[in-house]
Amino acid sequence: MNEEIKKVTHIDNVRLSDDGKSVVIIDQTQLPNRTEYLTLSTGKDIWDAIYKLQVRGAPAIGICAGYGIYCLALQIETEDYDQFLAAFHEQKEYLNSSRPTAVNLSWALNRMEDVVKANADKPVKEILGLLEKECKAIHAEDIEMCRKISEYGLSLLHEGDGVLTHCNAGPLATSRYGTGQGAFFLAKEKGMDIKVFADETRPLLQGARLTSYELSKAGVDVTLICDNMASIVMKNGWIQACMVGCDRVAANGDAANKIGTSGVAILAKHYGIPFYVLGPTSTIDMNCKTGDDIKIELRDPEEIKEKFYAEPVALKEVKCYNPAFDVTDHELITAIVTEKGICYPPFTESIAALFR
Amino acid sequence: MNEEIKKVTHIDNVRLSDDGKSVVIIDQTQLPNRTEYLTLSTGKDIWDAIYKLQVRGAPAIGICAGYGIYCLALQIETEDYDQFLAAFHEQKEYLNSSRPTAVNLSWALNRMEDVVKANADKPVKEILGLLEKECKAIHAEDIEMCRKISEYGLSLLHEGDGVLTHCNAGPLATSRYGTGQGAFFLAKEKGMDIKVFADETRPLLQGARLTSYELSKAGVDVTLICDNMASIVMKNGWIQACMVGCDRVAANGDAANKIGTSGVAILAKHYGIPFYVLGPTSTIDMNCKTGDDIKIELRDPEEIKEKFYAEPVALKEVKCYNPAFDVTDHELITAIVTEKGICYPPFTESIAALFR
Repeated sequence: MNEEIKKVTHIDNVRLSDDGKSVVIIDQTQLPNRTEYLTLSTGKDIWDAIYKLQVRGAPAIGICAGYGIYCLALQIETEDYDQFLAAFHEQKEYLNSSRPTAVNLSWALNRMEDVVKANADKPVKEILGLLEKECKAIHAEDIEMCRKISEYGLSLLHEGDGVLTHCNAGPLATSRYGTGQGAFFLAKEKGMDIKVFADETRPLLQGARLTSYELSKAGVDVTLICDNMASIVMKNGWIQACMVGCDRVAANGDAANKIGTSGVAILAKHYGIPFYVLGPTSTIDMNCKTGDDIKIELRDPEEIKEKFYAEPVALKEVKCYNPAFDVTDHELITAIVTEKGICYPPFTESIAALFR
Repeated sequence: MNEEIKKVTHIDNVRLSDDGKSVVIIDQTQLPNRTEYLTLSTGKDIWDAIYKLQVRGAPAIGICAGYGIYCLALQIETEDYDQFLAAFHEQKEYLNSSRPTAVNLSWALNRMEDVVKANADKPVKEILGLLEKECKAIHAEDIEMCRKISEYGLSLLHEGDGVLTHCNAGPLATSRYGTGQGAFFLAKEKGMDIKVFADETRPLLQGARLTSYELSKAGVDVTLICDNMASIVMKNGWIQACMVGCDRVAANGDAANKIGTSGVAILAKHYGIPFYVLGPTSTIDMNCKTGDDIKIELRDPEEIKEKFYAEPVALKEVKCYNPAFDVTDHELITAIVTEKGICYPPFTESIAALFR
């Protein structure tokens, strides 16, 4: 990575410490007010960081777990393979219990354990070297995947474009570029002028706390708006494209993403603005025929009425409806951007082609 | 007002005290956490209450000013008409300086002074009686106007309907029923089942702090949502109509209202749900040909990044765009509901007919 690029994408959310024995993460729970780095050396350190969401975002959790189990393996004091494997497995299971629903967590930990199992004939010291390579590969592969998604995404934008985005799928949640917001960082690296409008993304404010933070730190021209201001910025003629991440995409192109995404897509259609969904092919679920198959998680009313506030903003007895996600109908989506290329309608065909 | 109705619409936001010598208001700055009533007896008390937004909403300010100048008139110790008029005028000018841009404030104060001026031949004691009648008439007329708007609004709803609303134009801002949310209170009085979904209305959260408060207190079935959840509740099939207030309506039906209203209207159109704008004919500005003539007030970024929060939610250097209002295109509006009746498209004709 050359110095210019390093300057722009300087948020190292997860990395090995300089002595190569610990994991260093940025504590996302302290953002945007305090940029604090944590050095994780023990199993408990790593477990806590994942559990407390100090590291969050599926790819970032996977990368952290990879580095984490490697650092813990370095601490196993034996030359005996069987003892080493047993101790490794115990640590792996412990880390895996920190956030059982995070698919990338168990995926990364299993991938690391597979290295140990596949090299039973080698000395422990050599296995440690292979584990180091593997966790660095997990990280490098994520960077490369994000870079490809961002390159494809950027190919859809033009010099001077205004782009509206929602929620956070940037460097903090992934690695270096991100997915939903990756094209904006890449544009900055290439010296392209892109003006980003970031929805604050109620109720958890990922757009304000994380997206506007990381874009601003990278020197991208970013303007924060409330979610309900998306219509007026589009009407003002300031938006030439919308770009968002995704949590799950159905075989027909229906895309689940942070609550409010479908509203942005409807506004974009009304104003004649293209609406792009960006994410790795791993988020496409071919077993999921349409968005109707995607279950929407309902969350605590406390997030709407109390979280972040100095005092509650509504009465205790007032009911709230707090869905974490919504599904954007494929008919509202202009294109789905993956690391393998850009899918256009009809999505049933273009998505299936990705997996051929 | 019969007891049943009184029970439902029990928020007396502005009234004369029981001894008839002071103004009693609910302190809106303390809502929803503390329901505190303030007794305003001096000119300074009344001035402060208006200046500090303890009483807010154009009609409510007018009513408060009417009662306020009457109470101050009671304190003028003279039987001499000229001395009385001079003292009255001084107090009136003082109250009028509390919020110079509030049209209803000067309107109500001028209307009270006109009573004094038109009765120069009468004893001061008799003038005080006429002033009491006048301020009560201002209040009664607003209640009647709100009741008519609410009656017309309710005629558009059906038993069991779900209705989405945005911001606050209810009893706290007006008198008894309100305009944008008036139909919901009237429905409750009539025993009709209406389920209200209230947008929290960022950044100032009038939907959470005021609308959900007053609907909940009145026993109306209300569910609070974030602004970006309007799309999913419509998609869920829970919404049969949208009803909002308005700040200014152009001659062609374009309607300015709290930021986010135009987005709700676009979603409603997408999902095939009628979108109704409710307000008194005094908000229709026939000198304003279209919404393009309506200037949009831009407010402080602090409202988005800091207000209500325990600590800032975005970096100081992050830009914000914070328009207070947006304009909903007349083509997105199903009907405009006034105290004189319901206007349907073409609005240029139906609105003009109101003033004939």
